[in-house]
Amino acid sequence: MLFNRKRAEALIEAQGLDAVVASSAENVLYMTGFECTTHWINKGFQQYALFSPGHSPDASLIAPGLEIDSLVEGDLWVEDVYVFSPFLRGRASDPALMDEIGRKGAALVARAPSVGTAVDGLVAAIEARGLQAGRVGIDESGVSIQALEELRKRLPNLKISYAANLLWEIRMVKTTEEIERIERSTRVSEDAIRAAYSTIRPGVTEGQIIDAYHRELADAGARPTFCVVGSGSRSSYPHSLRSDRAIETGDIVRYDVGCTWRYYHSDHARAIILGQPTDEQRRVWEALAQGVDDAVSAVKPGATAADLFNVAMAPARRLGLDNFDRFHCGHGIGISVYDPPIVTASDPTKSAFLMPEIKEGLEVGMVLNIEVGYYVQGVMGFLCEDTMVVTQQGSRLFTRNSKSLDLQTFVER
Amino acid sequence: MLFNRKRAEALIEAQGLDAVVASSAENVLYMTGFECTTHWINKGFQQYALFSPGHSPDASLIAPGLEIDSLVEGDLWVEDVYVFSPFLRGRASDPALMDEIGRKGAALVARAPSVGTAVDGLVAAIEARGLQAGRVGIDESGVSIQALEELRKRLPNLKISYAANLLWEIRMVKTTEEIERIERSTRVSEDAIRAAYSTIRPGVTEGQIIDAYHRELADAGARPTFCVVGSGSRSSYPHSLRSDRAIETGDIVRYDVGCTWRYYHSDHARAIILGQPTDEQRRVWEALAQGVDDAVSAVKPGATAADLFNVAMAPARRLGLDNFDRFHCGHGIGISVYDPPIVTASDPTKSAFLMPEIKEGLEVGMVLNIEVGYYVQGVMGFLCEDTMVVTQQGSRLFTRNSKSLDLQTFVER
Repeated sequence: MLFNRKRAEALIEAQGLDAVVASSAENVLYMTGFECTTHWINKGFQQYALFSPGHSPDASLIAPGLEIDSLVEGDLWVEDVYVFSPFLRGRASDPALMDEIGRKGAALVARAPSVGTAVDGLVAAIEARGLQAGRVGIDESGVSIQALEELRKRLPNLKISYAANLLWEIRMVKTTEEIERIERSTRVSEDAIRAAYSTIRPGVTEGQIIDAYHRELADAGARPTFCVVGSGSRSSYPHSLRSDRAIETGDIVRYDVGCTWRYYHSDHARAIILGQPTDEQRRVWEALAQGVDDAVSAVKPGATAADLFNVAMAPARRLGLDNFDRFHCGHGIGISVYDPPIVTASDPTKSAFLMPEIKEGLEVGMVLNIEVGYYVQGVMGFLCEDTMVVTQQGSRLFTRNSKSLDLQTFVER
Repeated sequence: MLFNRKRAEALIEAQGLDAVVASSAENVLYMTGFECTTHWINKGFQQYALFSPGHSPDASLIAPGLEIDSLVEGDLWVEDVYVFSPFLRGRASDPALMDEIGRKGAALVARAPSVGTAVDGLVAAIEARGLQAGRVGIDESGVSIQALEELRKRLPNLKISYAANLLWEIRMVKTTEEIERIERSTRVSEDAIRAAYSTIRPGVTEGQIIDAYHRELADAGARPTFCVVGSGSRSSYPHSLRSDRAIETGDIVRYDVGCTWRYYHSDHARAIILGQPTDEQRRVWEALAQGVDDAVSAVKPGATAADLFNVAMAPARRLGLDNFDRFHCGHGIGISVYDPPIVTASDPTKSAFLMPEIKEGLEVGMVLNIEVGYYVQGVMGFLCEDTMVVTQQGSRLFTRNSKSLDLQTFVER
């Protein structure tokens, strides 16, 4: 199961809530296991899941009629389903002609309450629990403003709080299923970029490497998210756009890439130099990589984000690089590419990523990225980034690609 | 330019607004041309663009410091930029070492006002125009509830209305650049699925066809969005999940697929039968395809969504199929997979897709999908779907794949 149910129960109780409502595509899939094509593709689509520990039922899903088959075929564990926007299907001339999914789908439609809209279903699920005046946390990251206004109007005594941060906090400690998916996503992505880098020679373009990376992802059943490949002076653009620049001897070829495997993200970075690195390049790269290695070694239950940040920064700080200061040196990762905690010594709520502040130290089961980069504007840039899961003993690395700047060594790992 | 500036000016004036603010990744890219990796990858990331015809400047963008290079390298046409979350970069030891993007980026940072957060930038852009008490439409599809609350608090006299529907209405009539991208997306996607279908023989799995489709997209520089391939009785699941079912002789192999090419969507559907169709299968397929063809022929400036819906439904209605009724027979397409108008005779605001109601008829430059499907639960299903642009003469089809149920004919087109 993706959902960390025990952690959810504890945090919901600690916040004094009766129920929490998931609304974004990420949070509904996370909470229920329901893979809904419409919800992921149609931006702004409204669909909800409700979790109310101690009530019966403890979980409900409000889903569109179009997706009946996915409801009964996939990993959904929630039994209490409300169906909105009914979707007509022809009935088999002989029921024996129907396959199992069809039969299960027909049974679901027969027993599931049919409601007009997603908000109708949410109101019904709240009323079925007698929570019209209850305390309900609503994931404000996916609910439309109109739906929220309607909910307030129809249940005027409902005590609504915003719960996107609560869901992020629940998601911060991963389940076994999530850890497996993130590790697989990382493995697939690292193998894909290594295969793409094996094609590097003078004249090969950045765009060709990007295309090769995406072909490898397709072979592995993974999906592209972002693929930053910057060579030469373009290595200094943290999020360089796709380009047709041809790689030349002596170039840094930097990557920062990710993918999803069954909706779970990877995100990692390395660089190579086509030919011999200069002393300066080697000195900078080794300090960044050392910072990552040191921080990875410092990862353990109880370690704080601020501790890790300072450890990660130390080697490059000792070099006295111009304008090196960073806001963060890493982040959680999961069904979003950035999950909390942000690895920073500053206030993460002040960052552009709008993350909740996590005051507690690391816990077993968190999955974390550590990254240290340095960019000289319009000249050169490096980023080194690893992914790991926090274990009782410290951590277990998911990333395995070599930190060697030598192309051949890198490709062979 | 992606932005239909003239239409925006007319609609903003008609609604009596001083400015409109874009907030979602789609709308900011659409309005400004700015391709921001962070905005597309980090869910909930706040970034805004403001367009205020008749004011000077008429357009502003509030963007993160991390993306300076993409701001000066890409297709951004907006000159008035506010930068939040400054991102430190080393300075070149000798300015002559910097490349052009680096120099332009440094110049932008030197002239652009630096603000703390995206909301700070939005407030500053509104104040710079003297619009503190103006009428501003805010795209509520991407702004966080917290950002909106802060904006209301900081500019208490601002008259805020919601503008997601207005942006959708602006986007409904496509520019030349958008039409080219949607057509290219369609071409690439049709070629990819035809290549994937050329591998079909007994024993090939649905999953293998999906992987082949994604490999072809990678080769073409396109990105996966959704790929529904359902065979045998699984053809009856409108959004079947990926499966390892092996295709058998006599199976329907139905697809409903899309991709993006430079952020613009395609979405089209066909089916083949591995072997001989039954009379019943042929009769149903031909009625659905006829409905699509008839509706495509009826597309012209002034035609209404309700007209097209009834034309598209007619042939299959004449067959008297059980439970055939549909809510819609198509939709606009663009930087979202569903744009308005919804091709329906019902009220589109009552659909699960939460689209604005468009009472006017079609206009030249709208890009439209027409689709007619029929699903017998747990037994079989067909969907036929085309994409076209409305022209002065009627329409020009983007989709070219054959509507033949014969695999060989389909693959050869």
